[in-house]
Amino acid sequence: MKSHRKVLTFHIPTRIGFVNITPEVAAAVAESGVSEGLCLVNPMHITASVYVNDDEGGLLSDYERFFEELVPHEPTARWRHNRTGEDNGDAHVKRQLMGQQVVLAITAGRLDFGPWEQVFYAEWDGRRTKRVLVKIIGE
Amino acid sequence: MKSHRKVLTFHIPTRIGFVNITPEVAAAVAESGVSEGLCLVNPMHITASVYVNDDEGGLLSDYERFFEELVPHEPTARWRHNRTGEDNGDAHVKRQLMGQQVVLAITAGRLDFGPWEQVFYAEWDGRRTKRVLVKIIGE
Amino acid sequence: MKSHRKVLTFHIPTRIGFVNITPEVAAAVAESGVSEGLCLVNPMHITASVYVNDDEGGLLSDYERFFEELVPHEPTARWRHNRTGEDNGDAHVKRQLMGQQVVLAITAGRLDFGPWEQVFYAEWDGRRTKRVLVKIIGE
Repeated sequence: MKSHRKVLTFHIPTRIGFVNITPEVAAAVAESGVSEGLCLVNPMHITASVYVNDDEGGLLSDYERFFEELVPHEPTARWRHNRTGEDNGDAHVKRQLMGQQVVLAITAGRLDFGPWEQVFYAEWDGRRTKRVLVKIIGE
Repeated sequence: MKSHRKVLTFHIPTRIGFVNITPEVAAAVAESGVSEGLCLVNPMHITASVYVNDDEGGLLSDYERFFEELVPHEPTARWRHNRTGEDNGDAHVKRQLMGQQVVLAITAGRLDFGPWEQVFYAEWDGRRTKRVLVKIIGE
Repeated sequence: MKSHRKVLTFHIPTRIGFVNITPEVAAAVAESGVSEGLCLVNPMHITASVYVNDDEGGLLSDYERFFEELVPHEPTARWRHNRTGEDNGDAHVKRQLMGQQVVLAITAGRLDFGPWEQVFYAEWDGRRTKRVLVKIIGE
């Protein structure tokens, strides 16, 4: 069995943002030398999501609007977590609703995706550097 | 290490629908010859979910009603994604909330489930053929 | 390839509750002897979640309030699932929104976590004994 670990780093300049990280994950798969296996893509921070969906600008703005309306950032006093002095209580909720992480199949040395599947990093509390772990096992 | 890949195909005649796919996933596990391992069940389309829950008709109608109320299909102009000419902006959101995919344990050659766990395919934008990837690794 | 299976048992005395199960999961990883691999943590019951987030009391009360407002337990007749005689229709919905399960990376024999990542068991229909499956594969 082979394994491979890679950490990706992101710094989103806004509070909320979405990045298509498929090229970085595909590069980690290529580096791993794994032909058949599984690839976990997991944010190492708990106010971010990793998810699989379409790379279409209207959809990304739908996500931002929908989750902001359902889980509003303000008034920040709404969230008891913010009594710690942070203001990201909403981001901890949004991250759960959107999706914590994904596991991707590797077949014949490549991400085994349908035609529209793309891996995204979703930032819910940006303006600082954050990491995503890619862990691959297989043979 | 062994691996096995299988693609399941579904055509749900309605926009929203739920199918218990446990027999198909269990068959893939049996075909794999894997005794101890993990089994990823992942929709290859991004307007569908794979999730684990109860096979009870009232629950399935609760899911349909709850997600339709929270993420309404209409008016379709509500979703910017629909400016592409599609009308499934809501389905891309519902799929995230319900769950993107599941990973199942395989123990002693079988799905390692509690008494009520069943794997479902949830369709949020049906009336066309879609695929679900089953990827198994183990020994 | 090595594999390891462990079942954790919980009895939450209230309907809703959250338990940081990181020590139990870390112990299972140590017992497994796996140095590089993946660890699935999956509730064997379908009215509970396993998720990764912060161990902060204000956040836990935010989660309880947010999900109870979005998916109210009462009136119990709101949920068709409750016509079975159960009263946990809401819990089956909350479990999907919060997250069904997690897969954790194992690196150098330990859970490969960012500084704030902690694994939690979320109970949405407690006052009875429930199980969580930990399944580890790797080498």
